[in-house]
Amino acid sequence: MKLSKIAFQVSKNAPANADTVNHKLLVQAGYVRQLMAGVYTYTTLGLKVLRSIENIIREEMNAIGGQEILMPALQPKENWVTTGGWDKIDVLFKLKSRTDKDYALGQSHEEIVTPLAKEFINSYKDLPLALYQIQWKYRDELRSKSGILRGREFFMKDMYSFHETQEDFERFYSETKAAYLRIFKRLGLTAKVTEASGGSFTEKVSYEFMVLTDAGEDDIFYCDECDYCINQEIAKVKEGDKCPKCGSPLKLARASEVGNVFDLGQKFAKDFEVTFTNQAGEKKYPIMGCYGIGVSRSMGVIVEKYNDEKGIIWPKSIAPFQVEVVSLSGAEDYALKVYETLQKANISVLLDDRNQSAGSKFAAADLLGLPVRLVVSPRNGEKIEWKERNQSESELIDLETVLTKLK
Amino acid sequence: MKLSKIAFQVSKNAPANADTVNHKLLVQAGYVRQLMAGVYTYTTLGLKVLRSIENIIREEMNAIGGQEILMPALQPKENWVTTGGWDKIDVLFKLKSRTDKDYALGQSHEEIVTPLAKEFINSYKDLPLALYQIQWKYRDELRSKSGILRGREFFMKDMYSFHETQEDFERFYSETKAAYLRIFKRLGLTAKVTEASGGSFTEKVSYEFMVLTDAGEDDIFYCDECDYCINQEIAKVKEGDKCPKCGSPLKLARASEVGNVFDLGQKFAKDFEVTFTNQAGEKKYPIMGCYGIGVSRSMGVIVEKYNDEKGIIWPKSIAPFQVEVVSLSGAEDYALKVYETLQKANISVLLDDRNQSAGSKFAAADLLGLPVRLVVSPRNGEKIEWKERNQSESELIDLETVLTKLK
Repeated sequence: MKLSKIAFQVSKNAPANADTVNHKLLVQAGYVRQLMAGVYTYTTLGLKVLRSIENIIREEMNAIGGQEILMPALQPKENWVTTGGWDKIDVLFKLKSRTDKDYALGQSHEEIVTPLAKEFINSYKDLPLALYQIQWKYRDELRSKSGILRGREFFMKDMYSFHETQEDFERFYSETKAAYLRIFKRLGLTAKVTEASGGSFTEKVSYEFMVLTDAGEDDIFYCDECDYCINQEIAKVKEGDKCPKCGSPLKLARASEVGNVFDLGQKFAKDFEVTFTNQAGEKKYPIMGCYGIGVSRSMGVIVEKYNDEKGIIWPKSIAPFQVEVVSLSGAEDYALKVYETLQKANISVLLDDRNQSAGSKFAAADLLGLPVRLVVSPRNGEKIEWKERNQSESELIDLETVLTKLK
Repeated sequence: MKLSKIAFQVSKNAPANADTVNHKLLVQAGYVRQLMAGVYTYTTLGLKVLRSIENIIREEMNAIGGQEILMPALQPKENWVTTGGWDKIDVLFKLKSRTDKDYALGQSHEEIVTPLAKEFINSYKDLPLALYQIQWKYRDELRSKSGILRGREFFMKDMYSFHETQEDFERFYSETKAAYLRIFKRLGLTAKVTEASGGSFTEKVSYEFMVLTDAGEDDIFYCDECDYCINQEIAKVKEGDKCPKCGSPLKLARASEVGNVFDLGQKFAKDFEVTFTNQAGEKKYPIMGCYGIGVSRSMGVIVEKYNDEKGIIWPKSIAPFQVEVVSLSGAEDYALKVYETLQKANISVLLDDRNQSAGSKFAAADLLGLPVRLVVSPRNGEKIEWKERNQSESELIDLETVLTKLK
């Protein structure tokens, strides 16, 4: 893609209302635009990043047997009355039709997936079942700050599983936890699995997947020596206390929740009268689990983790392009040749062919944050300056070597 | 994929409330489930079809220089007040936050894309500009019948273009028209370009892309001998009248609108004060165009066109799989081998490995409507029965020949 053809250009100035690094850098680099607090447009390059995160999640959900579906955002009141959520959930957006019908906007989809699955769950042979979607969700937040970390409209992967027994849920939860840790690793994030309270509908403990970042909205106690980690909300420890598992001193840090898991028990199965016949011929309610990952939030957390004073430093797995070719004045023809050669080799590449100064192009490249910058300058003849975004040194190499290094 | 692993199974019975072929067949075959009138869940195979349609549209929009973005569905009232739509558009869903802020759900995105583009349109050098998205839309329809043809929540591609002159808009409209006709051809649809009224905001004529089907909601007069076509709403002709272009007798038929184009003039540019400086240094308002394609509606229209008394007959371009292998009792091992051989050859294939009778499996294959059915039966040894869904004859061939025919 040629940068001159992309409408959304980098800006010299940070947005005035940005309270977090992700908001500042994503807007300044042209990846997103704020429509109102908590609601963003994803522009050409921002949408590419979002789709890359989505695809990594999809691959890992399919690998553990999740079946992808897509449920509506516009939902009938009745489903929410059935579970008690209509009156209990304060972030639920509600609206009326012209004919006075009441609807909710989905903030989670237990109310839709449970009656949907009911039709297909009759026998223990139909279990376990795991359905997931990657879908926009809506929450009527009182305050929505922190860029794309906390949206009123946000992109989420939500999976729902149905099991014959608590043991089978625990087995599937372990597989999902492993898949989640693989996902976050592929995204360049180190997630800590944190005990938390069970949310609106369950007394059971839930698990949160937390990434340490000052832009987060939770405080967690964690241990550097083992995997102990607990949300301050339910913790009975304080900073410096001994870790209950290994005795090392506990640390306190801000963190952002990028994923979560709820053991829903039989709450929703009972609400919607979902039963199956077990091997003994008895009618039973299945055990349900719910597993979320914030897709747009993960994008924000990645920017919070990967940046420097000059801009974003995308991990290779989700960078909108792997390489940016910077075409300097007097080397346009050779830069175009380099760009086309990389394209032919199936390397995803952006060409900065704008009519701008070298300094302005270097600043834009740092702000955009692609993993590799290739400068084509009349000073260097056929040699190309290779510089990785997360390193300070550069080297002059020929096109053959560029191709070899990128493969 | 193995059919036994897919939760959403074909049903022996059609849904009781289905008023159209697409509703009946899509539900019975397990591609969609109705949550409420005009609002549907897309299940595992239905979502695959929807994504295939989406990808064909995306390829053709990119080919004419459209830049994909993603704008929010949740939108501030202010943008709709600016254009007059808040009071004028009766299908606009409105809602309030807990803090009494007013929002709309996007039924079209002129109100969002125009102020978004404003930041990047300064000079004639920034034009033309074409931004598009593929996004869920919301319309507060009084009645919503006809399956996925008319949704309260529906999937749509909407593109918006900005031009220096009316001539440049006309040029781009011609390119888009050609792209639309390529898209519909790839989807197996023959679309007629119909003159219609300009909608809420423009006195100008708009164009609709109409597919003849009894499930449609429009009546059009068309000519079999030339490309003349007009919506009855604005027609001054009647059935049997001479075609104004070629003199042949006009026909009347029901049709469904799968796409449309509006010449928006300077209405939205003026509302949001979007101006550019032309070559003479004068401030001017750009001319805008708007171009829609109903993605979910196209899926419904395809089912209306491609079916028989036994089920759906998907065009190859959007079939969820190209081939279904039907494994009959006693031939399970060889059927699995055929399935795995096709998978290794990168052919998209579904294996019916359910514990069902041959008759039930044949009925399911016809209902599901994949282009090719391969029956593996103990009666036929290593030979495989090849039958195309849109043909009545079958033939016995070996696996090598199957592979050759599918490549």
